[in-house]
Amino acid sequence: MSAQQHPDAARESRLGSRLLAVALPALPQVKPGDDLPGMAVDGWRALAAEDPALSPVEGDVLVVTQKVVSKAEGRIVDLRTITPRPEAAEFAARWDRDARQVEVVLREAAEILRMERGIVITRTRHGFVCANAGVDASNTGDTETLTLLPDDPDASARAIRDRLVEAFGVPLGVIVSDSFGRPWRWGIVDVALGVAGFRPLDDMRGRPDADGRLMHVTVVAVADQIASAAELASGKTSGRPLVLVRGATLPGGEGSVVADVVMDRSNDLFR
Amino acid sequence: MSAQQHPDAARESRLGSRLLAVALPALPQVKPGDDLPGMAVDGWRALAAEDPALSPVEGDVLVVTQKVVSKAEGRIVDLRTITPRPEAAEFAARWDRDARQVEVVLREAAEILRMERGIVITRTRHGFVCANAGVDASNTGDTETLTLLPDDPDASARAIRDRLVEAFGVPLGVIVSDSFGRPWRWGIVDVALGVAGFRPLDDMRGRPDADGRLMHVTVVAVADQIASAAELASGKTSGRPLVLVRGATLPGGEGSVVADVVMDRSNDLFR
Repeated sequence: MSAQQHPDAARESRLGSRLLAVALPALPQVKPGDDLPGMAVDGWRALAAEDPALSPVEGDVLVVTQKVVSKAEGRIVDLRTITPRPEAAEFAARWDRDARQVEVVLREAAEILRMERGIVITRTRHGFVCANAGVDASNTGDTETLTLLPDDPDASARAIRDRLVEAFGVPLGVIVSDSFGRPWRWGIVDVALGVAGFRPLDDMRGRPDADGRLMHVTVVAVADQIASAAELASGKTSGRPLVLVRGATLPGGEGSVVADVVMDRSNDLFR
Repeated sequence: MSAQQHPDAARESRLGSRLLAVALPALPQVKPGDDLPGMAVDGWRALAAEDPALSPVEGDVLVVTQKVVSKAEGRIVDLRTITPRPEAAEFAARWDRDARQVEVVLREAAEILRMERGIVITRTRHGFVCANAGVDASNTGDTETLTLLPDDPDASARAIRDRLVEAFGVPLGVIVSDSFGRPWRWGIVDVALGVAGFRPLDDMRGRPDADGRLMHVTVVAVADQIASAAELASGKTSGRPLVLVRGATLPGGEGSVVADVVMDRSNDLFR
């Protein structure tokens, strides 16, 4: 289309549309009972002290990785307390895994979709389909503990958001993120486990496209894409689990990943 | 972890780790035979003229949506030339779709995984699993044409990259992106169909995590995450199909989405 046909495009062109993702300063090791919302407020203040342009503004999203949320919420298992069932011991022996880890995965899974090559593909109680029920052994601070997914990641996001809004006085969004594998493609991508302050899906159905034709099936997973953008700014080994993402157009209202994004089996044509 | 234990984290904290995604100025309607690589060079020059800080630097990635690549490469079908087979006509009548569109989808699909509720889930010749074989009716410029996926999206990316590197004299990356649905979760996310100038996966296996423990299964789909970040800066209706993404850590070397990201069935535990 030409700029004449679409004055909005010309205006946008001048203004520029920008997305920015900036990691907050590294956190110390997070422990059960730690005030993670308070740490998020302090971290953002520290970032804003370095660069006042990064003080919170309406529409900013803070992306918080599952790992620190789980630790602060005490969703940690000490492997020394776990006795594996025979099925876990057998699978672990066959694939050179820790039988106690496999046991924890089996306990966390609401449904086992597949158990092969040392990996258990599961559906969690929240409805997430992921490897090992989201149980994670890396970056826990020692080698004898695992983190479990938060009980209610939307509630975790809301708790952080409430404190940020209280501290900064502007409407903000929060995402609790995790790295998930997917079918058909190698590699993990970060997705949203929980969200607060906006709706995780942008439903563009019924909105005209650039030719004025109605877009029929376009529902964009905005929160998942924001989680992926945040991962690029944080990295896996850097100890920077909080990332500010600015400039995404957030679907208004309140939403929930579990209620809005997790797909009922009967609707899932891709399975 | 503390900053004492991890001097790198302290250094990163001061430097700040930032990801920036900025849409280039809107393109005019792209037609078959148009010099898309040249338009990308001109568009980036126009962006740099508005903001010199956005002149190309090493490690920048230009994300180009499939739609304009397909148009420039003439991967367009005129629906008036299509005669649907009976199966297409029947499916279209049942689900209120255009039978000619369904016919084109069936021709483009290497394999039909599912055909239900008006949607055909397909595997393409490239190996991508997506709805309707990537055949797209929106934003084509008129209502009687469809775009097909590029024949070789990695080659499309390389052609654009070669011209950008020639024009700007710095090593850059290019991604050809598209919006795909996925199982288990509502909403589409942008992913990479083709890549040039870097490897699409960051293989962190064998690298120590923040506790010094080896990370066993972490392969990050960097190119897919960059595509998602770009989508947030462009939007679906704005006519801005070119997005600069700066600040991602690019895995070095040359790669291919079809060769590196598309997963062989035998390895796919998620299916």
